Amino acid sequence: MTGIFDHPWLSGLFADDEIAELWSAESQLAHMMAFEASWSRHGHLAGLWSEADGAAAASAILAVRLAPDALRKGTGQDGVCVPALVRLLKDQTGATAIHKGATSQDVIDTATVMSLIPSLDLIDKRLERVASELHAIETRFGERPLMGRTRMQAAMPITVADRIRTWRLPLLAHRDRLAQMRPRIGQVQIGGATGDRAVLGHGVDAFCDAVAKDLDLSTTPHSWHAMRDGMAEAASLLSLITGTLGKMGQDICLMAQQGIDEVTIEGGGGSSAMPHKQNPVQAELLVTLARFNAVQVSGMHHALIHEQERSGAAWSLEWMLLPQMVKAAGRALSVASTLASQVVEIGSPRSLR
Amino acid sequence: MTGIFDHPWLSGLFADDEIAELWSAESQLAHMMAFEASWSRHGHLAGLWSEADGAAAASAILAVRLAPDALRKGTGQDGVCVPALVRLLKDQTGATAIHKGATSQDVIDTATVMSLIPSLDLIDKRLERVASELHAIETRFGERPLMGRTRMQAAMPITVADRIRTWRLPLLAHRDRLAQMRPRIGQVQIGGATGDRAVLGHGVDAFCDAVAKDLDLSTTPHSWHAMRDGMAEAASLLSLITGTLGKMGQDICLMAQQGIDEVTIEGGGGSSAMPHKQNPVQAELLVTLARFNAVQVSGMHHALIHEQERSGAAWSLEWMLLPQMVKAAGRALSVASTLASQVVEIGSPRSLR
Amino acid sequence: MTGIFDHPWLSGLFADDEIAELWSAESQLAHMMAFEASWSRHGHLAGLWSEADGAAAASAILAVRLAPDALRKGTGQDGVCVPALVRLLKDQTGATAIHKGATSQDVIDTATVMSLIPSLDLIDKRLERVASELHAIETRFGERPLMGRTRMQAAMPITVADRIRTWRLPLLAHRDRLAQMRPRIGQVQIGGATGDRAVLGHGVDAFCDAVAKDLDLSTTPHSWHAMRDGMAEAASLLSLITGTLGKMGQDICLMAQQGIDEVTIEGGGGSSAMPHKQNPVQAELLVTLARFNAVQVSGMHHALIHEQERSGAAWSLEWMLLPQMVKAAGRALSVASTLASQVVEIGSPRSLR
Amino acid sequence: MTGIFDHPWLSGLFADDEIAELWSAESQLAHMMAFEASWSRHGHLAGLWSEADGAAAASAILAVRLAPDALRKGTGQDGVCVPALVRLLKDQTGATAIHKGATSQDVIDTATVMSLIPSLDLIDKRLERVASELHAIETRFGERPLMGRTRMQAAMPITVADRIRTWRLPLLAHRDRLAQMRPRIGQVQIGGATGDRAVLGHGVDAFCDAVAKDLDLSTTPHSWHAMRDGMAEAASLLSLITGTLGKMGQDICLMAQQGIDEVTIEGGGGSSAMPHKQNPVQAELLVTLARFNAVQVSGMHHALIHEQERSGAAWSLEWMLLPQMVKAAGRALSVASTLASQVVEIGSPRSLR
Repeated sequence: MTGIFDHPWLSGLFADDEIAELWSAESQLAHMMAFEASWSRHGHLAGLWSEADGAAAASAILAVRLAPDALRKGTGQDGVCVPALVRLLKDQTGATAIHKGATSQDVIDTATVMSLIPSLDLIDKRLERVASELHAIETRFGERPLMGRTRMQAAMPITVADRIRTWRLPLLAHRDRLAQMRPRIGQVQIGGATGDRAVLGHGVDAFCDAVAKDLDLSTTPHSWHAMRDGMAEAASLLSLITGTLGKMGQDICLMAQQGIDEVTIEGGGGSSAMPHKQNPVQAELLVTLARFNAVQVSGMHHALIHEQERSGAAWSLEWMLLPQMVKAAGRALSVASTLASQVVEIGSPRSLR
Repeated sequence: MTGIFDHPWLSGLFADDEIAELWSAESQLAHMMAFEASWSRHGHLAGLWSEADGAAAASAILAVRLAPDALRKGTGQDGVCVPALVRLLKDQTGATAIHKGATSQDVIDTATVMSLIPSLDLIDKRLERVASELHAIETRFGERPLMGRTRMQAAMPITVADRIRTWRLPLLAHRDRLAQMRPRIGQVQIGGATGDRAVLGHGVDAFCDAVAKDLDLSTTPHSWHAMRDGMAEAASLLSLITGTLGKMGQDICLMAQQGIDEVTIEGGGGSSAMPHKQNPVQAELLVTLARFNAVQVSGMHHALIHEQERSGAAWSLEWMLLPQMVKAAGRALSVASTLASQVVEIGSPRSLR
Repeated sequence: MTGIFDHPWLSGLFADDEIAELWSAESQLAHMMAFEASWSRHGHLAGLWSEADGAAAASAILAVRLAPDALRKGTGQDGVCVPALVRLLKDQTGATAIHKGATSQDVIDTATVMSLIPSLDLIDKRLERVASELHAIETRFGERPLMGRTRMQAAMPITVADRIRTWRLPLLAHRDRLAQMRPRIGQVQIGGATGDRAVLGHGVDAFCDAVAKDLDLSTTPHSWHAMRDGMAEAASLLSLITGTLGKMGQDICLMAQQGIDEVTIEGGGGSSAMPHKQNPVQAELLVTLARFNAVQVSGMHHALIHEQERSGAAWSLEWMLLPQMVKAAGRALSVASTLASQVVEIGSPRSLR
Repeated sequence: MTGIFDHPWLSGLFADDEIAELWSAESQLAHMMAFEASWSRHGHLAGLWSEADGAAAASAILAVRLAPDALRKGTGQDGVCVPALVRLLKDQTGATAIHKGATSQDVIDTATVMSLIPSLDLIDKRLERVASELHAIETRFGERPLMGRTRMQAAMPITVADRIRTWRLPLLAHRDRLAQMRPRIGQVQIGGATGDRAVLGHGVDAFCDAVAKDLDLSTTPHSWHAMRDGMAEAASLLSLITGTLGKMGQDICLMAQQGIDEVTIEGGGGSSAMPHKQNPVQAELLVTLARFNAVQVSGMHHALIHEQERSGAAWSLEWMLLPQMVKAAGRALSVASTLASQVVEIGSPRSLR
């Protein structure tokens, strides 16, 4: 009952395949190797080696096939997989125009962003899709009456559209937030040993531009090794998204109660003890994922306290938290789509209309 | 040792007077009464009463003087202070063109925003100021050498400017975030009993515009009773800000260690046991405030799971958390200014230069 | 809307008077002065001064009357109130047999424990009381049928006793936990500047025993300046308690829904918009307090990472969190009693019996 | 960079093999099948079926070999793996004396406890071992001087033993806590559909005793489906343990700084950019794991708010958090042992002695 997103059976509940693919070990390794190849390819711009040596090393790197677990022992020893990766690349290619001037954090942070940005793009598409699916429900059922409930007590009648709007409008606001945030996140990480880029000399800007372009990221005038506000901001938005969907899930759980009967969901979960039951599993899952991210987001904010030029402690904490948060947000959006498609009826029961 | 921001002596450490004023009970009460007066004044636009009755009630409301603790008993009974407030206003003015069509959440959320927006504006000014103070230190000491440290180990020499830039640049990014977020926060709350504004009839838009204008907020096409993403987003930014300052505080604590001696701070704190000591109290406080907000932000994300049209449970949780987060952020910024002014020397000790 | 537990009107909802008294600034100050007086009185055992000088100083200290805010400025300067307190005590008494060999943390931690232990004792009494009140409801209504609900869906009929038992039994387990934990918490703090007690010489044990006895605490063979597991354990139990009561509150909110109608509560809260409503304010408050403590407990666990002999940063974080957690737990227990007394009917509605 | 404990290379840093084995999908499946077999075997005591039918089913269940991912699709559908498991067991055995009277939560909670209890026992042994390893360092180096540091400033000299004691003594306290807590955790879960055990009739106690005995757990007079205080208490202790070790890790990072030079660690981590560096990777990892658990513990406390007879939302949240917390605690203890073995020198540098 661990590794919830990769677990043989729990992944059936918690995992989203598209997001999982973006964060797989294989993708991470490919991103790191793409970074190293690009570093080799353009290193001549920073005076690291000749253009020819760099080009040869880049080609050789891209031809290497590594098993992800080849990095395991080195990661345990060094606290980070890059020294082992660089040793393997050098051994297998015989090239030397590799990694010089770079540091582990350049490789790993860039690789993370290469998973994060397409994840955000996918999340953005799903935000649009869920908003549109909810809008379709509003169009179909929106004028039906629904008892408005405040403090969990019947208050005054509203419409189905009024309730659904509180699920849908924040999704649109999240799209705005994502668009505003994206340029702050999608940046290559290049800093060298202490983040000051000193070793990259006068060609540093051209070099950074070229590497960023290869990797489809934006360039930056500075490294962000010790400035983690982008990562914590991304985490915050991921949790805002799951929070909104958690509200929708909670509302649907409440509406599905017998005696309330304000929504009919088809395809609910079965019970091992009571075959007649239809459990609102998808709706509950939205609540779980929302609370999960609301917990994790705290750790990403603690990781802002990143001492000096690189905090092994704070940086590793991000590794433990951020990918899980992305996966939870991606899953919540696919669950919300499923749930939207399962709504057969919504609104006060016929007897009250 | 409670109520840290209002405590007779701990407030000397934790409280910021300007922010405290914006969130004082007196300010909150004034905001609520301004809302009620505006509601009365413009209610005729929504067909609630005649223009004359509304104007008379508005004037009468503004003439009322209430002791904040007059609302205590009613708050305990009703879970919210507004029913008691409305009773008192009606009793003391004799007017009836009061509050009809409004709900407690309209009053309290709007009053909160009336404290929050000027707090954000003040925070924005302080972000600019601290960034500028740090820039002045960079200008003065920036070229001095400093040992770059990664994973808490000496790595390669950098400059003072390299270190300070990791404190300063995120402050500028926070200003961008704040500017992008501000329109999502500065909105009047008008929804009525269940948030649907139904009782406000055809004049609803003109009415909302007028109330918003009175209170120097923007109007909205919908209430946001149950859509708390703005509040959680604000909390997230507050914690990003304290997190950045916490990194600065942590770094300064590390630099001030004997044996490291990379910064000289004047005016440190005294010890009851060791009169010779100069403790980096301001720097430590930045770490404390950062971790405090990194904890609280989690609760604000949980509060997104706001069931149905109004969750007493989730809404009250915001009351417990958000004002403290604003106060912590405001205090962190004033502490950072003090700390910046206390830097006498920064950079590797003379012996190493 | 800040300082929730001391706020002019919000305290009507959130504050518990008995607990507030135990944590008032006046009580804290009295505890610190009792500590200082005891230190003076018994200092001769540790060779700090003569018995006569110590006795005279102790009497003089106890005669001093200080306004709590006299410590404000010094706290802001030193990060802790004790240097200012000691200066004032020396000034006002003219005695010199004061505080020598002690450190701020001795004073403040001991004073905190002097608030915490009676708080835990009060909480223990209330746990017993609430358990007994719930047992009375079980006795009266326990055999009535109630629809058992799993995953928020009707499952199979149970009895009222089955539901209430899930609220009551954990309260009894919390009493066991509290009894087991209490000896780990109720310890005097005596360490001196760096916690090693070196300055207290051969008489250290007799001295510590005497001070502990004066203050009705247990003695310890070591200071616990930098070992905060007791504080974090206490916080954890406080949050376990509010969590159990939060489950009870959540259940009652769900049972009170129209359409479910499984509980009738008298004396619910009123609405400013809908005079007919009876809001389950007390039940919602239990949920709020539970989530509040579930958030804060995280910070108390972060504070375990207390660097070296004293971490100003981690220690101050405790000041911001622990008193609030005690107050939340104390309030939750008094709210639970009120709520228990408000239960008029409980069980499936008559029509289903 | 996800599934940190199972990741092809990050597991080299974060994973503990012994704990991983206890929580593997294979172990979980074996525990669930052991529960089902025991349920079948003793079901005749509860009048569920004949002794012969039960015995035959039990044998048949234990002969079944299932691939863990056979439960994936059903888990996604039902929100829990048990309905799929029961279908497979019935299909593959042809037996019918299976699972009747049980519910998914009986199976899964019991299986969790069957992983948790041996984990706690292993953790207890490791607590003892680390305490003993630290004691050995005390014995060897304890009388050496060390500069005591408060608020990150040099205060007064202490000894190495004084510092190490703040790491070691809480480990012993944690063993006491664990021993006190263990009986509250090691309980079989038997409740049936709604937790009331009604279907198990007069033989319920004998039946529960027999199942508990089979599985090496204690029996209980009630199910604890909706009383999650044991799980949250276990989580709290796990985080207390990692917090203590985080303090040790933080201290060692600080002591290992060049310029401070109070500890020499052999076998530190290498850098991809600076081959000369020896990074205190193990010490940093202790800080990371402490902050990780300090974050997660919050979620386990939120999960106490477990509505009605079974909350799919709160219960699933535990699945996401608790196993990770156990793994983090187990890993922190093995890291602490490694780190203790790497200490070559500790105490103030020779020049200061």
